[in-house]
Amino acid sequence: MQTAVATAKVWIGGEWRDSDAEGVFEPENPATGEKLGREFPVSRWSDCDRALTAAVAAAHELETVAPEKIAGFLEAYAKELELDADAIVQAAHEETALPVSPRLKDVELPRTTDQLRQAAAAARQGTWRRPIVDQGKNLRSCYAPIGPVVVFGPNNFPFAFNGVSGGDFAAAIVAGNPVIAKAHPLHAYTSQRMAEAAARALQSTGLPPATVQMIYKLNHENGARLVSDPRIGASGFTGSKGAGLKLKHAADTAGKPIYLEMSSLNPVLFLPEGLKENAQKWARELADSCTLGSGQFCTRPNLAVAVAGEATEAFLQELTAAIASREPHALLSSSTRDQLHESISALQHAGATLLTGGKNVPGPGYRYASTLLRVSGKAFLSAPEELQREAFGNEVMVIVAADEAELLRVLEHLEGQLTGTVYSAAAGADDDLYARVEPILRRKVGRLLNDKMPTGVAVSPAMNHGGPYPATGHPHFTAVGIPTSIARFTALHSYDNVRPERLPAFLR
Amino acid sequence: MQTAVATAKVWIGGEWRDSDAEGVFEPENPATGEKLGREFPVSRWSDCDRALTAAVAAAHELETVAPEKIAGFLEAYAKELELDADAIVQAAHEETALPVSPRLKDVELPRTTDQLRQAAAAARQGTWRRPIVDQGKNLRSCYAPIGPVVVFGPNNFPFAFNGVSGGDFAAAIVAGNPVIAKAHPLHAYTSQRMAEAAARALQSTGLPPATVQMIYKLNHENGARLVSDPRIGASGFTGSKGAGLKLKHAADTAGKPIYLEMSSLNPVLFLPEGLKENAQKWARELADSCTLGSGQFCTRPNLAVAVAGEATEAFLQELTAAIASREPHALLSSSTRDQLHESISALQHAGATLLTGGKNVPGPGYRYASTLLRVSGKAFLSAPEELQREAFGNEVMVIVAADEAELLRVLEHLEGQLTGTVYSAAAGADDDLYARVEPILRRKVGRLLNDKMPTGVAVSPAMNHGGPYPATGHPHFTAVGIPTSIARFTALHSYDNVRPERLPAFLR
Repeated sequence: MQTAVATAKVWIGGEWRDSDAEGVFEPENPATGEKLGREFPVSRWSDCDRALTAAVAAAHELETVAPEKIAGFLEAYAKELELDADAIVQAAHEETALPVSPRLKDVELPRTTDQLRQAAAAARQGTWRRPIVDQGKNLRSCYAPIGPVVVFGPNNFPFAFNGVSGGDFAAAIVAGNPVIAKAHPLHAYTSQRMAEAAARALQSTGLPPATVQMIYKLNHENGARLVSDPRIGASGFTGSKGAGLKLKHAADTAGKPIYLEMSSLNPVLFLPEGLKENAQKWARELADSCTLGSGQFCTRPNLAVAVAGEATEAFLQELTAAIASREPHALLSSSTRDQLHESISALQHAGATLLTGGKNVPGPGYRYASTLLRVSGKAFLSAPEELQREAFGNEVMVIVAADEAELLRVLEHLEGQLTGTVYSAAAGADDDLYARVEPILRRKVGRLLNDKMPTGVAVSPAMNHGGPYPATGHPHFTAVGIPTSIARFTALHSYDNVRPERLPAFLR
Repeated sequence: MQTAVATAKVWIGGEWRDSDAEGVFEPENPATGEKLGREFPVSRWSDCDRALTAAVAAAHELETVAPEKIAGFLEAYAKELELDADAIVQAAHEETALPVSPRLKDVELPRTTDQLRQAAAAARQGTWRRPIVDQGKNLRSCYAPIGPVVVFGPNNFPFAFNGVSGGDFAAAIVAGNPVIAKAHPLHAYTSQRMAEAAARALQSTGLPPATVQMIYKLNHENGARLVSDPRIGASGFTGSKGAGLKLKHAADTAGKPIYLEMSSLNPVLFLPEGLKENAQKWARELADSCTLGSGQFCTRPNLAVAVAGEATEAFLQELTAAIASREPHALLSSSTRDQLHESISALQHAGATLLTGGKNVPGPGYRYASTLLRVSGKAFLSAPEELQREAFGNEVMVIVAADEAELLRVLEHLEGQLTGTVYSAAAGADDDLYARVEPILRRKVGRLLNDKMPTGVAVSPAMNHGGPYPATGHPHFTAVGIPTSIARFTALHSYDNVRPERLPAFLR
């Protein structure tokens, strides 16, 4: 496709306008490696500056907009996405190689619109405000919008975590904050179509047009400048630890809150008594979970832990066969594949042994053989940092601890994680060990699971899609689960002796 | 007092033990400048290391301690403080020069024990857990202890914000976190007596002895190492911006939450119509508030703003006379006085004019003449950063804006503050201007006040003792106000498909 194409426009201040671009990029189809015939701009700082100024004005306007109107926008947006679903799904499929079904069309898009509608309900209910009235002291408090929010979406969820439609977006909007979305360049056209749907919904519901803005790509320096600009309230970021830590440093230095979801190995423990009865079954469950969607989920198991023994050997044998038999799908991009290979090589270099996989799969697109690594507890304990390198993709590493004591030491050395899972004997034969494992694991993870794989993050008020550093930047907050996720984009406001007519209505 | 005295011991791991000290310090009475005949250690890292290890063990033990027992400790501690009140108040009076009455004995100590009892009630009620049960998805969440908490107390509240007895301490303990208190060296003996009371309460209620630990002083490097140690959950700090930012940088880099209360000018706006009627009255209120306790409160007004005119001149005349007539009390230390003078000099250098004060007061102790500065809105706008330097003590600077438009521009340039106050005409003559002032000020402050001075922080669930950076490190959190303040020391935990008998009782 060598025909000249127009560079896509950015959505700033209620207009689709030409970016003040420092360059362009052309997305490709990772299933074929072919260019998709579209061109998108890399924004200069002037685009950000314009968006920030418009966002500040929108934030002021939103202060006096009724919650019902914000809810109406979120619902209208969900509807617009459904009306354009075929085109959006097709765009995402072409840009990410993720399957149309069962994924983009019947799982991720419905999840995204459901999330927007749950957000609309939360806007109406207003429980996120958590008003407190102390009449005796004539003192009142509530949570209030934090200010314009910048959202950096990840590569792996073109809808549900997209900066212009996902969980951070919805949470920020509920609390009355305009959003500046930094779309992920790997699904730029998908993001463009979604932003077009948002623009239609903004217009039909009469919200300030700059309530939602979107750019496609920035250099690192401008990204850092954006999250630390005095005009923003907070940022949300989902992506790699490397990129996340750079943004965190910039935001921290400026005193600006940033909520990051950066990396997680999601360790799964298989306790010995249970493993004796379930080696085959659990091996297949693990193989399914770590290869689903080519392992490109924040909560796919990247690490498993078992205690040495016959059952563990049988488990590993079955696991090797199961993983080797999985037909690998295309990864999100050539760099996703390069990074996966680099991580797997680094893990081997640090002491892990390759049981299967570990190489590119020939043919069209960017596919990588599903990979299984094995390492002893002793080796892990001698290089815990190097052996906790995330391999984002269809890979899992099993740590075989010499005994229960070593298993506990391995757990003590785990970094913070989004999830931690324990499989154990149904009848209670592992309960004594569970009682020793749980207190260690519980402190390290945001979500503790029993007897099921961690992949998949339900949109539920009881969800925690968060966890201790470096899984996220702060263990008090969750990125998924309305209304709890809204708290990230709020500031506490107290009113002391303020005259009644000057109070927000819900505090009078 | 040149007799040899024993160096005080540190309270670590349930023992009063000799510090592994790198030096000692001898507190003095700031009202007289005389040494108090006591010697305290500057701890080396080994003291911190020992305390951290003990805290980790205590944190594990606390996980299975009933809330009732934690509540019992907090109440027993309050009682022990009351039993030793005379000695504690006397110690604090000698170390800080703050008056016994009406302050240490009848205001701050009762406030502190009240806070501990409110914390006990919150521990019993357990609302800080905020449990959510989603039975359909078999998913549950609650807030849980974040891990050992380090608390750095400030110089200005020997009881109510002390690391071993104050708001951060109480909030951390309610959530089941052991506390390592870094006492402020300016009230080391007071802190020692309080820690002794805590030790008795720990013993009588059977809590792990390392639930509370205390050291007196650390060098900057060890302070930074402490807040970033992998064994801690979070830190709380109240003090100067300079010290706070160093700790923030260390904690941020390590991915450890730190809650800071660093500085605030607490601007007070006097709107023009009201000022015409109340110039004298408001001037006296401001003079009282900014000299109370020698201005050594986090929320004393350090800045006032008015619009040029006859009433403002009358106000300034009255204010000059009132402030000049206030007998200055001793400041907390010689360095407090040096820093106050340095700040006042810097403000003059940056464009402010001295109306009264600006010098040391001769005689015993560390007293400084109550000081009033004046600066034009234009001058302020030309150096807003330099002219927002905090002068911690009995000083206030009045910005005189040329007109309403300049007043609004001044507000736009304010940094984040703990409080912001608006005085206005009772009958509504200033309401139009209030409506333009409020949206700007509201975003900049944690607590918005009408018609009363901000000094004084009620212990109420509706209090916000927090605000945007650099007043604090994160605008979502408050340091005062139970139960909201507890949230700082919690991590979100989700339980997914966890077997019923393995769930915390309150989630079953």
